[in-house]
Amino acid sequence: MQLIDGKKIAAEIKAEIAGEVKEIYLSKGKQPHLAAILVGHDGGSETYVAGKVKDCEDCGFKSTLVRFEENVTEETLLSEVRKLNEDADVDGFIVQLPLPRHINEHKILQEIDYRKDVDGFHPVNVGRMAIGLPCFISATPFGIVELLNRYNIETAGKHCVVLGRSNIVGKPVASLLMQKNNPGDCTVTVCHSRTKDIKKYCLDADIIIAALGAPGFLNGDMVKDGAVVIDVGTTRVPSTETKSGFRLKGDVDFESVAPKCSFITPVPGGVGPMTRVALMKNTLLAGKKVIYG
Amino acid sequence: MQLIDGKKIAAEIKAEIAGEVKEIYLSKGKQPHLAAILVGHDGGSETYVAGKVKDCEDCGFKSTLVRFEENVTEETLLSEVRKLNEDADVDGFIVQLPLPRHINEHKILQEIDYRKDVDGFHPVNVGRMAIGLPCFISATPFGIVELLNRYNIETAGKHCVVLGRSNIVGKPVASLLMQKNNPGDCTVTVCHSRTKDIKKYCLDADIIIAALGAPGFLNGDMVKDGAVVIDVGTTRVPSTETKSGFRLKGDVDFESVAPKCSFITPVPGGVGPMTRVALMKNTLLAGKKVIYG
Repeated sequence: MQLIDGKKIAAEIKAEIAGEVKEIYLSKGKQPHLAAILVGHDGGSETYVAGKVKDCEDCGFKSTLVRFEENVTEETLLSEVRKLNEDADVDGFIVQLPLPRHINEHKILQEIDYRKDVDGFHPVNVGRMAIGLPCFISATPFGIVELLNRYNIETAGKHCVVLGRSNIVGKPVASLLMQKNNPGDCTVTVCHSRTKDIKKYCLDADIIIAALGAPGFLNGDMVKDGAVVIDVGTTRVPSTETKSGFRLKGDVDFESVAPKCSFITPVPGGVGPMTRVALMKNTLLAGKKVIYG
Repeated sequence: MQLIDGKKIAAEIKAEIAGEVKEIYLSKGKQPHLAAILVGHDGGSETYVAGKVKDCEDCGFKSTLVRFEENVTEETLLSEVRKLNEDADVDGFIVQLPLPRHINEHKILQEIDYRKDVDGFHPVNVGRMAIGLPCFISATPFGIVELLNRYNIETAGKHCVVLGRSNIVGKPVASLLMQKNNPGDCTVTVCHSRTKDIKKYCLDADIIIAALGAPGFLNGDMVKDGAVVIDVGTTRVPSTETKSGFRLKGDVDFESVAPKCSFITPVPGGVGPMTRVALMKNTLLAGKKVIYG
């Protein structure tokens, strides 16, 4: 069993990006520039955005944080999005989710110029990914595929079972892994809350991507020998062992599953850091204008 | 075994559309208007477009056919697309594929205003379908789902195996059937040329959608009792029994598969007529401005 070290790979990618940014700055005098819109003061969102700002510093990007209070109107947000669309200095930007209930999330995301949509949530990027065209791929699927790639895990002809059909993980990772590509060329099965006998599909899988948000769901009895297991779950569960009083628990019961695997990601330190670095990679691509010119 | 009569259902839908069009015309004085761009004189394309024009007549739509010779430039085509985008009288339009090799198909399709993209090939429509938002759904997946719907075939919790991963059938129908929806809520497996042991997946399937373009590929040994089989294949094979010298053959070996099925589509007369009527349905939706206002 080999542990997939997402933290290490993410650090490597960050270093690669920082190297490229130096060259870009030397030749063009401009750093890639990521902006983020943050609404309200939700603890999780604050933490994520602070992490993104720090990642930008590490990569040598310029970053801008635009804050609004919880009671911001949809119209104000839309006009800020339009402003960032027009701002030639901003290469890419994100709107940190979730947004307050009175704001139509889809409406905001669709207003973003898809050429600056480094989160990859705009329908144009989702659609282009589905049909195999160059695009911004959203962070978690991007991170998962990059892990498979960097560990040279064979995917062609393998049966990949995706647990979960969310718009940000299950569906896009299924879409990526069925493409004629490497990584890719998998036979893909998407299981979810309505699937009968999930165990049957898992036992047949060469690769399992667990993204249900159900802590410890996948156990050793559900995995065949030699499987590759990618754990996307990050549920906070109470813990007496940490200062914060909680710890992250994945969808995989690591103790029972790991001994059967050829490769497995830990939680934390697996997919999480890759998700974080994926945004940096997309920002670099945006700065280099390689996808949309 | 019940034969799914696509021809009959398509005729019913056409009659429903014609009825609605009459009402729209009475209240608003305007018929829905479909335009088609046809490049060159390919026999297949001529036939398809002629069929679409006739369907428009049957539905009470206004139709416009814009023709270009094989040597038309990409720029001329793009400017025609822009003209139709701007034309307030045109509710929806299509560019008949395939286009000559010197034309970038993706570039043309992406130039179409997605709000008039009744073929559903624009990335915005593909992306919106993937994330479950209202959109124009492309013809064949639309037709398949409508057949399941009209025959009250239960899909929730069923294992649906899709054979083929094309952008116009396999991927979108897989995407539709995994959504939280009815029809939908299937556990979906997408198999393709790189799949090892396709038979294994088929034998486990409650619903098989065969879209490989491999005549007679699916035989009785690959199907479990009670399965629903949807045959999307329409390969022309030589025939001494028809005046044209060929006949359409599906991906399913009907003789051996049909006796095991609960429901099965024939070829011809199954998915084909539904694909054709789907464009009419999208044109009606475009005329009513119900998706994008």
